[in-house]
Amino acid sequence: MLAQELLKKIQDVVGPENCLRDEADRFCYAFDSSLLSQINNWVPDLVVRVKTTEQVATILKLANEYRVPVVPRGAGTGQCCGSVAWRGGITLDLSGMNQILSFDLENLQVVVQPGIVHAELNKALAPHGFFFPPDPGSTKMCTLGGMVAFNSSGQRSVKYGTTKQYILGLEVVLPTGEVITTGGAKSRALKSVAGYDLTGLFVGSEGTLGVVTRIRLKVLPIPEKRGLVVAFFDELEASGKAVVQIFRGRLLPSAIEIMDRTAMKAAGMYKPDLNLPDAEAMLLFEVDGSPVDVTYQAQKIAEICRQFTQRVEWTDDPKRLGELWAARGVVGAAAGRVKEGATRVYIGEDICVPVVMVPQALKKIQELSVKYNIPIVTYGHIGDGNLHAAPVINTYDQEEIEKVKKLGDEIHRMALAMEGTTTGEHGVGLTRAQYMEEELGLSLDVMRRIKKLLDPNNILNPGKMALEGE
Amino acid sequence: MLAQELLKKIQDVVGPENCLRDEADRFCYAFDSSLLSQINNWVPDLVVRVKTTEQVATILKLANEYRVPVVPRGAGTGQCCGSVAWRGGITLDLSGMNQILSFDLENLQVVVQPGIVHAELNKALAPHGFFFPPDPGSTKMCTLGGMVAFNSSGQRSVKYGTTKQYILGLEVVLPTGEVITTGGAKSRALKSVAGYDLTGLFVGSEGTLGVVTRIRLKVLPIPEKRGLVVAFFDELEASGKAVVQIFRGRLLPSAIEIMDRTAMKAAGMYKPDLNLPDAEAMLLFEVDGSPVDVTYQAQKIAEICRQFTQRVEWTDDPKRLGELWAARGVVGAAAGRVKEGATRVYIGEDICVPVVMVPQALKKIQELSVKYNIPIVTYGHIGDGNLHAAPVINTYDQEEIEKVKKLGDEIHRMALAMEGTTTGEHGVGLTRAQYMEEELGLSLDVMRRIKKLLDPNNILNPGKMALEGE
Repeated sequence: MLAQELLKKIQDVVGPENCLRDEADRFCYAFDSSLLSQINNWVPDLVVRVKTTEQVATILKLANEYRVPVVPRGAGTGQCCGSVAWRGGITLDLSGMNQILSFDLENLQVVVQPGIVHAELNKALAPHGFFFPPDPGSTKMCTLGGMVAFNSSGQRSVKYGTTKQYILGLEVVLPTGEVITTGGAKSRALKSVAGYDLTGLFVGSEGTLGVVTRIRLKVLPIPEKRGLVVAFFDELEASGKAVVQIFRGRLLPSAIEIMDRTAMKAAGMYKPDLNLPDAEAMLLFEVDGSPVDVTYQAQKIAEICRQFTQRVEWTDDPKRLGELWAARGVVGAAAGRVKEGATRVYIGEDICVPVVMVPQALKKIQELSVKYNIPIVTYGHIGDGNLHAAPVINTYDQEEIEKVKKLGDEIHRMALAMEGTTTGEHGVGLTRAQYMEEELGLSLDVMRRIKKLLDPNNILNPGKMALEGE
Repeated sequence: MLAQELLKKIQDVVGPENCLRDEADRFCYAFDSSLLSQINNWVPDLVVRVKTTEQVATILKLANEYRVPVVPRGAGTGQCCGSVAWRGGITLDLSGMNQILSFDLENLQVVVQPGIVHAELNKALAPHGFFFPPDPGSTKMCTLGGMVAFNSSGQRSVKYGTTKQYILGLEVVLPTGEVITTGGAKSRALKSVAGYDLTGLFVGSEGTLGVVTRIRLKVLPIPEKRGLVVAFFDELEASGKAVVQIFRGRLLPSAIEIMDRTAMKAAGMYKPDLNLPDAEAMLLFEVDGSPVDVTYQAQKIAEICRQFTQRVEWTDDPKRLGELWAARGVVGAAAGRVKEGATRVYIGEDICVPVVMVPQALKKIQELSVKYNIPIVTYGHIGDGNLHAAPVINTYDQEEIEKVKKLGDEIHRMALAMEGTTTGEHGVGLTRAQYMEEELGLSLDVMRRIKKLLDPNNILNPGKMALEGE
C-alpha cells in the first residue's frame, strides 16, 4: 500500500480521476501475455494515467523520495512480464499520451508520443506515402513506447531491421526525474554521431533506465508493391537450405517466414479453407519494391526453392496474397485450437538461433513436445533465425504449468547451446532474467552498473532484466 | 615522458620491437586529417603495437596503475583529432590486428579484428556474393575498428544506414582492463534483445569507453546491379525539391550526392575530361538492385528530376557509370586545386542539416566563403542532409589559419541554428568538443557520468568528446 501522503501528492499532479485505486481497475494492469503474469496476481498498488512529460517527471521524483517502484506501461501486449508491477507500487499508464506531434516528412521523420498505437501511426503516414517499417504482430494494439522499450521487430526485420534503427531521438525522464533529449537537444538531423548513442541505450532497456515521453522516428517510402512466394517442404533441412541459397542468390526478401507441421495443422484447423497440403514445413517469402522488381525477385526465389521442392507458388495478386499470408497471420490465434479447452502460453516463445540451425531447432522442439506431452505450434522468422514456439496447455492444471515451465527452460537452454539467444524480439523482463548471467557473461555487470548509475534507488521497473545482481 | 618502470613492463608485454620510442616513429602518429592535429604537434610519448586482446588488457591495467593516457588508433584517417594523443601518453596501434577470424556467411555474419581495412574486408567478401554496406570515402585505408569507434558511414547511408546497424557484437577491453563481449557472450544470433544495447553504446564512443578487439558484423548480399542518374540544376533550391520528390515518389536510391558549383569547378580543374557543364548544382543518384529494378528506378528518378531541369542523364553502363561517378570521386582530392599552393583543410566539414535545408546551407557556405575570402568546395550526401564543406587555405599562413577557424565555427553554428548537427559521420573528437553542451544539452551530463563510471581514472582517450565537464 502506498502512503496516503504520497497518494495525495500524486493526485495533485494528475488529478484524482487519473489515479486508479479501485481493485477491479488495477487488476487489468496485472497482466501482459506472459505465462508468468497469468499465474501470478501482481496487481499494482496504484495506476497513474499521465498526459505530460512534467507529470512523469514529478511522479518519478516523488517515487524516489518515497522509494516506491514505478512500472511504465503502454498497451500491455508484451510477452515477458516486462510491464507488470510484480513488487507493487505504481503502474504508469502512458497510453493516453498518443499524439503525433509533428509530421516532418520532407525530412523523413515524425515526432510522436509513446502511447500511439503502431497501426494508427502507419495509418496516419500511409496517405503521404510513408511507413514506419518495424511490424510487430500486435500492430493493432501495441504502442510505439512499448516498441521502443523492447526494441520490437517482426516479420520484416530480415530486410528492415528492428525499431532501434528508426529511432532518431527520444525525450526521456530519468529515474531521478531529470528530463533529457537524446539524439541532439533540438535536432531534426537524419544522421548524427555527436556524443554517445544514448538513444540506442534507452531503446530496448525495457523501462528500467527511464520513461520515454517523446519519440523522433525515421520513416521510409512505402514500397510500391508486394509479392509472395510460398513453398512446401517434405524435409525441414531442405527449408533451411533454401533460405541460405536465397541469400547467396543475392536476394533480400522483406520477410522469410516458416511454419512447421504443427503450425500448418493449427492454421488448417482454425481456417480449413486455407487448404494447406501435408508437409514438414512451409516457407513464405515476401518481396517488396517496384512492380518489375517484385516479379523478378519472386520468380528467382521460386526458382531457387524448386531446387529443394516442387511445391512452389508465387503471386502478386492482392487477393491471393491475402489468402496465403492469412495462413501465417492466423497461426498465433490458431495455436490454441490444437488441444480442446487449452490455451497457448508464452514461455520459451522467442528464441533466435543461427539461421542454419533453424531446422535442427524445430526438430528438437518437436521432440520436447513429445517428451512433455504438450502440443507445441512453432512458426517464426527463419530469415533471422527467430522462432516462436507456442506450447498449448490447460492453464488451470497446475501439473501442466509445472511441466511447461520445464519445457520452456529446455527451449531457452537449447537456444543458448546453439549459440543463439533466449530472446530475439520479445525482451527479457522477468521471464528470461534467469538466463542473463549465462547469455550475457561479464557484460551483464556493466549493465548493472549503468542501471545503478541512473537509478540509484532502483525505483524504475525494479527486478527486471536481471539487473539487481551484485 | 613515461616512467622507465612502466616502459619496461610494457616491453615485457608486447616485446621491445613493438614499443616505438624513436621520435621519428612517434611523429607519424601525431596527426589525423583534422586541421587541429596539423597545427599542433601532439606526439605520443610511446606507440605500442598490439596483437592480442590480452596485451590490450594488460596495457590498460598498467595505464590505470600509472595514470597514463591511452589513445587507441587504427589507420589514423579520422577527421576530428580523435586518435591523436594530445596529452601525450601511449598511442595503442591496433592496425596489426587485421585478421578475419570467421566467415559465417550462411548466417550472414563474419567476425573480424579491428585493424582490418574496410576495402580488404569487402574484397574478401565479394567472391561469396556479400558485402559490408557502410562505405566511407577512406575505404582503402580506414580500419573497421575506426569505423566502429566513429560509427562511420558514407554515400550509401541514405539506404543502408551507418556502421552501427551492422554490428552484432563486440569484444571490448574496458578502460580498467576487464574484457567483455557484447551482443551475447557466445552468440551467433542475427537478432537479440537480451540486455541493454552495449554494442550500440560502444559504437561511436570514439575510443573513450573501451578498446574494441573483435567485431561480429552482419553482411548483406551484393546487389546484382547499379545504375546512376545525373542531373544538373540552375538553382540550388530546385535540387533540394527534386530530392524530396524522389522520396515522395516511393523511391529509395542507394546514394544521393550533391556537388555545388564550387565542387563541380574543382572536379573540372582536376579532371578536365569530365566535361561538366555550367550549373549551380549537380545531383548524382545511385540506384541498386535487380537489373530490371535498376532500370525502373533510374527512369523514374530521371522523370522526377525533369520536373526541375532538362539536363538529366542516366546510365547502367559500367564504363559511363565510372566516368560520371568519378566527378564525385575526385572532389575530395580536387578541392586543393581551386587555389594555387593551398591545401584543403578539415574544419566544419561534416555538418548535417534537415534535408530541405541543404540548398540554404549551401548558399550560406558560399556567403561565408566570400566573407572570409577563403575558397570552399562543398559536396555531400544530400539524401540525409550531410554536407562536406572543404575550405582551401595556405596552411603556412597563420592569418589564414585564424580566419578558417572562425569560418569553421560559423559553419558549425549555422548547422545548429538549422536544427542540424555539427557532425553527421566524422565524429566529435577534439575539434567539435566545444559544441557539445549546446548540441546535446542535458544528455551530455549522462554521457559524462557513463564515461566516469567505466573509466574512473580518465585514462582512455581523455579530453575528447567534451566528456570532462562537471
